Amino acid sequence: MQIQNVAILGGGLIGASWAALFLSRGLSVAIADPRAEAEGFCRQLIAEAWPHLAALATIPETPNWDALQFSQSIAEACQGAELVQDCGPDRIEVKRTMLAEAETTLQPEAIFASSTSSLMASDIQAGARHPERVLVAHPMNPPHLVPLVELVAGDHTDPNVIAAARQFYDAMNRVTVIAQKERPGHIANRLTSALYREAVNIVAEGIATVQDVDKAIAYGPGMRWALMGPHLIYHLGGGPGGYRHYLDHLGPTQAERWKDLGTPALTPELIETMVSQLDASLAEVDDAALKSSRDAALVALAKLKQDLPV
Amino acid sequence: MQIQNVAILGGGLIGASWAALFLSRGLSVAIADPRAEAEGFCRQLIAEAWPHLAALATIPETPNWDALQFSQSIAEACQGAELVQDCGPDRIEVKRTMLAEAETTLQPEAIFASSTSSLMASDIQAGARHPERVLVAHPMNPPHLVPLVELVAGDHTDPNVIAAARQFYDAMNRVTVIAQKERPGHIANRLTSALYREAVNIVAEGIATVQDVDKAIAYGPGMRWALMGPHLIYHLGGGPGGYRHYLDHLGPTQAERWKDLGTPALTPELIETMVSQLDASLAEVDDAALKSSRDAALVALAKLKQDLPV
Repeated sequence: MQIQNVAILGGGLIGASWAALFLSRGLSVAIADPRAEAEGFCRQLIAEAWPHLAALATIPETPNWDALQFSQSIAEACQGAELVQDCGPDRIEVKRTMLAEAETTLQPEAIFASSTSSLMASDIQAGARHPERVLVAHPMNPPHLVPLVELVAGDHTDPNVIAAARQFYDAMNRVTVIAQKERPGHIANRLTSALYREAVNIVAEGIATVQDVDKAIAYGPGMRWALMGPHLIYHLGGGPGGYRHYLDHLGPTQAERWKDLGTPALTPELIETMVSQLDASLAEVDDAALKSSRDAALVALAKLKQDLPV
Repeated sequence: MQIQNVAILGGGLIGASWAALFLSRGLSVAIADPRAEAEGFCRQLIAEAWPHLAALATIPETPNWDALQFSQSIAEACQGAELVQDCGPDRIEVKRTMLAEAETTLQPEAIFASSTSSLMASDIQAGARHPERVLVAHPMNPPHLVPLVELVAGDHTDPNVIAAARQFYDAMNRVTVIAQKERPGHIANRLTSALYREAVNIVAEGIATVQDVDKAIAYGPGMRWALMGPHLIYHLGGGPGGYRHYLDHLGPTQAERWKDLGTPALTPELIETMVSQLDASLAEVDDAALKSSRDAALVALAKLKQDLPV
């Protein structure tokens, strides 16, 4: 099935960012959100995202606003949609209610893809009229700039739906990966949580400050992680013997370090320490300027990765 | 003390990369290495690194080869040096022997900075003539492209030496962080090990393949980590309430995910699985091409970070 009409449930940051991406690829988008202010918010975000999207692909000069509809009704937005991108609250009872309302108007073969970062497709699809159409399609924030989309099937998801979803997101210039099992954090957020746990532990143990932990990443290994993942990094670090040589010779040093990593508790005292260290480092920085600088840098980085595929 | 003459102990990958950086900043460099082939290797790496260094700073058109000396003797290379950058093998008895030999010719106030990733300054300096001059100055590979340098004092390191080292590496266009405690992995490699442990675990548990783990990082969170560390990322993700709001509201979801992270063992079977998955994904890729593409991308990324400080 050709996907030309997408319904987006929830017009917050993630929903608006998806909308910008889909519009830039020529799709029609209907956004459902009960809040009256969602429309203005989405239109502004789409307008701001447009030059960034234009830097990364050949797209129309301006968004085709006629292809963008808003509704306070999920059922109405889903009418005629071939794919639903759910960006609603991450609470299972809310998701099921939204899915049930969507199914009152959705054609049987339409796909229901949830952006959820914490729920399982199996739980969302339980009780659905067409559970086979439900999957998780989890982006990183903001979805229009960070290419990754993680696809996860539930117990009752049709494998053809996973294949069709992959084809769809690939056509949206996304990079898709498929998780073989439903687990908390899918793939990427397991990795971010693992890094974050030690980033917190280093502060908790007084090894370094919040600011130095962040600098250590952004001017150190983070620069390599923007280009390749750790398996490939260690393969290249292994010399002519590659990954096997690395694992045989340096695997034990990793295992040694693993033993020393921490399992901190996010106590009120630790939270206070981290917040005050962070705030001190940002005393002269404007969050809005930081965010727009980050977005510009993400665009430049995404462009760099297109030009120099590594 | 003005640092103009640097001795580098060990002319391998790390030593040669440091040499390129120091030469590009106008210093005189003496490399000590017992292997006859070290000189040719270093000269070639420096020549290849030069255009990359030129992309990042205003430097002479060609390396001043007259400012580069080679010796098979540590004592000779250290003669007249104000700073020694040790890049020798990471074995404590070797380090101590090298330091002892260096001290036979080093002026008393010269700094001895070890690039070690696994040893402690306290252990290296034990028994030294001038333990107060010894510190760890750990780079990421390759040091001339990745700006991070981690400084760690030993029990007997003079705080003025840490301050002088920081000033020196900052003048080399590096980004320095100071670890407050000696711990395995300093700061950055604790973080890389934490990420890697879960990257291994995801494969061990069959959640995703080596290739999909790497893609998930390089097209997902890795792109953000090249720009900022996790504390700052979550601060910006916390909206107007910032980091405190994030921690109060989403801290518990991190803690939940932490419970599900794994502690894999690098068994021969797992190593076999990881190596064969990686090799399959690289069947049509040339490692040398990949490395030079990575280096070019690192240069472009470092440049991007200079232009858009986030």
